[in-house]
Amino acid sequence: MFIAKVTGNVVTTQKVAKMTGTKLLIIEPLCVNEADKTFAPTGRSFVAVDSVGAGAGEIVMVTQGSSARMTDTTSDAPVDCVIIGIIDSVNVPDGVVYEK
Amino acid sequence: MFIAKVTGNVVTTQKVAKMTGTKLLIIEPLCVNEADKTFAPTGRSFVAVDSVGAGAGEIVMVTQGSSARMTDTTSDAPVDCVIIGIIDSVNVPDGVVYEK
Amino acid sequence: MFIAKVTGNVVTTQKVAKMTGTKLLIIEPLCVNEADKTFAPTGRSFVAVDSVGAGAGEIVMVTQGSSARMTDTTSDAPVDCVIIGIIDSVNVPDGVVYEK
Amino acid sequence: MFIAKVTGNVVTTQKVAKMTGTKLLIIEPLCVNEADKTFAPTGRSFVAVDSVGAGAGEIVMVTQGSSARMTDTTSDAPVDCVIIGIIDSVNVPDGVVYEK
Amino acid sequence: MFIAKVTGNVVTTQKVAKMTGTKLLIIEPLCVNEADKTFAPTGRSFVAVDSVGAGAGEIVMVTQGSSARMTDTTSDAPVDCVIIGIIDSVNVPDGVVYEK
Repeated sequence: MFIAKVTGNVVTTQKVAKMTGTKLLIIEPLCVNEADKTFAPTGRSFVAVDSVGAGAGEIVMVTQGSSARMTDTTSDAPVDCVIIGIIDSVNVPDGVVYEK
Repeated sequence: MFIAKVTGNVVTTQKVAKMTGTKLLIIEPLCVNEADKTFAPTGRSFVAVDSVGAGAGEIVMVTQGSSARMTDTTSDAPVDCVIIGIIDSVNVPDGVVYEK
Repeated sequence: MFIAKVTGNVVTTQKVAKMTGTKLLIIEPLCVNEADKTFAPTGRSFVAVDSVGAGAGEIVMVTQGSSARMTDTTSDAPVDCVIIGIIDSVNVPDGVVYEK
Repeated sequence: MFIAKVTGNVVTTQKVAKMTGTKLLIIEPLCVNEADKTFAPTGRSFVAVDSVGAGAGEIVMVTQGSSARMTDTTSDAPVDCVIIGIIDSVNVPDGVVYEK
Repeated sequence: MFIAKVTGNVVTTQKVAKMTGTKLLIIEPLCVNEADKTFAPTGRSFVAVDSVGAGAGEIVMVTQGSSARMTDTTSDAPVDCVIIGIIDSVNVPDGVVYEK
């Protein structure tokens, strides 16, 4: 899994039937800079199915690949990226990188 | 999943039997620049099976890996990349990155 | 899937039993430069099982991951990369990138 | 699999039910510099489920993808990254890169 | 699959039960430089299960992902990287890149 920021959303009307009703969010993966206790942006973008009620600006945990189909929201769907949690805090041994 | 632009198509006569009749499009993944509200090109290329009737120049949503076999078009085929939706709009909190 | 050039082959005598008799080719993934109508080399190398009778110098279509096991040649084998087609042509809206 | 350093942890209250009770650690993949007998940091971050009782600062072995679901801790869960061992030593032909 | 050099080994006592008895080698992926007929190092490191009796310094063929579980040594284990062959030779159309 990786840590990401929700940066927006995607609207698609014309899509495969199994995707009907899914909420699609744009996410940007973040790296943890242990020394500076900050997140480093990656500039990359993915589209993830939301299974936990996440919103724009929130820091979330994302699962990729076949494991992204292991939620009730995504089972048997052509989904390779899913938000599985909203992050409360990210901690390093001597401090806090993020707190909601 | 990721956002991509359809940039062309591939023709192959000599191929594995399960691929007969599939429409093969070339796609370029795009990143979302949240601050500038633009797409950033990646310069990368994939070949994706089209399952939604997409055409050159359109902005689409693409699924990779084993999840790419979870559509009626691609079931049981040696396919690791499929177009699952044509994107209407991509939105960030304070604006619009793309509208069809 | 991606487009690749066959650049060579690999010979291995000592290998897992399920790989006996497979033809192993070296491939280099190519990117499509839509503006210039050319292929851009990536400098990367993979070893792929050939399931369509490809040869050195040919431009082929390659599938990766678990989907690489979805051909008669690779079923149940420890194979994560397979050539599934020999490409006849690659086309962009206003021209041809490649023709066999 | 790859070698990684545990750099911190993630706390998430709001998450998919199957993730309840899992310990989530932040890891940074390391590369082995054979000539210098050192680890090279990669600056990348993943979130991994801990299945072996690892702690901050430890050097661990990490499995990704569908294989990350092949432990008792992660079976059937939307998990694509798991710590499967705590590393005692990393050795190259003429020396030691790491010893716990 | 990809071509790699065995650069070392990993020792782990504290690990998931299914990994007991597996031989863990460190590998560095190599790229084939077709023009120069040489290998180019990538500087990346993975840990692979050995299923063919490989040793330090040898040039091997490596499978990743779920396909890495398709050998007798790795079946049902949390393994995403396995050595499936020891390479005898790597050949390009007008020469030899490597011979054991």
